[in-house]
Amino acid sequence: MTDRSAHSRSATLEDSVVWDGETVRILDRRVFPSRVEWVVAHSPQEVASAIRDMVTQSSGPLYAACAGMSLAAFQARDEDLPVARARLAAAGDALAHARPTNKHPKDAVEAVLRRTEAATSTPELVELAIDEARRFEADYRDAGLRLGRAAVGLLPRRATILTHCWAEAYLFGVVRAAEEAGTELTWVATETRPYLQGARLTAHSLRELDNDVTLITDGMAAAALSSPRGAGSGAIDAALTAADRVAMDGSVINKVGTLGIAAAAHAFDIPFIGLVEAPDPEAPTGADVVIEDRDPREVLEVLGNRTASELVTDAWYPAFDCAPPRLVSWIATSRGAFRPDRMADYFTTDPEAMAAPPLSPDTVLGADQ
Amino acid sequence: MTDRSAHSRSATLEDSVVWDGETVRILDRRVFPSRVEWVVAHSPQEVASAIRDMVTQSSGPLYAACAGMSLAAFQARDEDLPVARARLAAAGDALAHARPTNKHPKDAVEAVLRRTEAATSTPELVELAIDEARRFEADYRDAGLRLGRAAVGLLPRRATILTHCWAEAYLFGVVRAAEEAGTELTWVATETRPYLQGARLTAHSLRELDNDVTLITDGMAAAALSSPRGAGSGAIDAALTAADRVAMDGSVINKVGTLGIAAAAHAFDIPFIGLVEAPDPEAPTGADVVIEDRDPREVLEVLGNRTASELVTDAWYPAFDCAPPRLVSWIATSRGAFRPDRMADYFTTDPEAMAAPPLSPDTVLGADQ
Repeated sequence: MTDRSAHSRSATLEDSVVWDGETVRILDRRVFPSRVEWVVAHSPQEVASAIRDMVTQSSGPLYAACAGMSLAAFQARDEDLPVARARLAAAGDALAHARPTNKHPKDAVEAVLRRTEAATSTPELVELAIDEARRFEADYRDAGLRLGRAAVGLLPRRATILTHCWAEAYLFGVVRAAEEAGTELTWVATETRPYLQGARLTAHSLRELDNDVTLITDGMAAAALSSPRGAGSGAIDAALTAADRVAMDGSVINKVGTLGIAAAAHAFDIPFIGLVEAPDPEAPTGADVVIEDRDPREVLEVLGNRTASELVTDAWYPAFDCAPPRLVSWIATSRGAFRPDRMADYFTTDPEAMAAPPLSPDTVLGADQ
Repeated sequence: MTDRSAHSRSATLEDSVVWDGETVRILDRRVFPSRVEWVVAHSPQEVASAIRDMVTQSSGPLYAACAGMSLAAFQARDEDLPVARARLAAAGDALAHARPTNKHPKDAVEAVLRRTEAATSTPELVELAIDEARRFEADYRDAGLRLGRAAVGLLPRRATILTHCWAEAYLFGVVRAAEEAGTELTWVATETRPYLQGARLTAHSLRELDNDVTLITDGMAAAALSSPRGAGSGAIDAALTAADRVAMDGSVINKVGTLGIAAAAHAFDIPFIGLVEAPDPEAPTGADVVIEDRDPREVLEVLGNRTASELVTDAWYPAFDCAPPRLVSWIATSRGAFRPDRMADYFTTDPEAMAAPPLSPDTVLGADQ
């Protein structure tokens, strides 16, 4: 875990899954932040059910899978080794397949199972499983901090940032890296229809972390980017979003709406920065990433209440869009920031490049933007 | 009035103000279309109150002012000429100042008062007032049809159009001009947060008129413009919106969100067309138009229900944005379509240029886009 003891404030969503021995508590994002409720799971299978029921999303399933594997190991502590191993495997199977498209739980489960292969006793198996689950989660959070350092290194010491949707660990990484570097961030957040992650999660978390944030609707991003007054709080220095995927050609695939922000940023010479732990070597170009369509009913409603005319039956809800590299300025990764045409450099860069805060962070924006 | 007898369908919002002698009925847009309710005004002063209370918006106040003047004249039909004239003037004063920023009611009132100056009897005054109110409204609707012809002349015979917000008379003008020309339009409409005019008014009216329309959230416009499948219904041929104002340099000032659509259209080589009756000779450039900020609370809510986290206190709601001429392909006016750098040509063009449907509408899109 990243040490946050030095920080006065923390965000509820930074620790949204808690394993405390016999239970795993999971913050219920289906109602957050209008209600702060925790779902309590008493078994790994109940954790898997919570993942399946969308109690937690984004990075949450990764944290839940780690906590579920720790719970499984802990609850098997009095069993013989073969039984304990079988119970851990069964828990892993449930957790890895709770939701088919999110790869994080599967990765976490595989890491834990691999690490415990060498165990020669139940206590050793329990210890290795819990240690690996903790390490896997810490590595993930650390990657967020590292790419946060890479992003903050691109910004002036006082920066106004426009963001979209909900970057979770990456958002926290940027905030924590800015604190390290003494960079003062002011945020403009889009509400992010249809699911309102910006209004409900991003803006909420930034306020909990004492960062200034101004909320806008998705259609106001271009107005903010085009104006010297930004969204009423000064010119925007950069647009910055997470990327669900970055292709090897530097295309940024992220929550729908990102493309429009990249296009508007490009039209007004504002840098657009994508955040990703690493580019995806299995996606040579943006066209190699399949864009999933979601239930169009969400476009006709807001939080379950009909907003569109009842005469309207056709709607379209692409979950993601793809910003081509010509609209992308930088990709900030856990190994530093790269231009979109230099994504291959990620794999030849020292993995420890961003392990510590840079002694003197460079401000490169404006230099050759 | 435009003759719509040849059309099988009409939209509720095409005739949203009705004068029937002793009353003026005004469609209540504050609840439309979830409820279809009419506010009944029994005096010009009640019409003015309805305008002030935002019962009607967009082109509605113009229609209401015309109807209010007709009502005032009709109700003064048994008075002596000086009294009838004074009552008409008092009605005009109330109607013209009901809302300070919408210039339409004031223009309508002035036209009626000017026309009645020569009246030598009360019956003549009544007749002239009613005739002028009718003419003023008909001219306005006719301008919508004329600029619709100019816009349709830019489109292929089957066209998929992305639009934003609510273009009222201009939207109906485009639909009717397309019917004239035998052009088949398919629409993609943004919902237009915060007030949802796209979801509530535009998409509703297009469905009433038997036009296909697919609804998207504001953030999906760039995804639709960038994709060969558009919003699931084929590539977008043009982005088309009304303009609240077009400056003499071709800048388009319109409902916030228009700029982002123009920027995305530009990034993907899709023409962006602004609709306006005429450019504004008093605005040499886009910078000469003051952008009004509105109550930011609307960004934190959807139709009065809080959607943003309660921790969020700062929001920004610019009512309009300004698309610079480099992002604008054409301005369709009541005298034809002009490139943004040729707006001055409007004033040297025959006012009757678009008085009738072109015999053979040219399809110029793609020619030198």
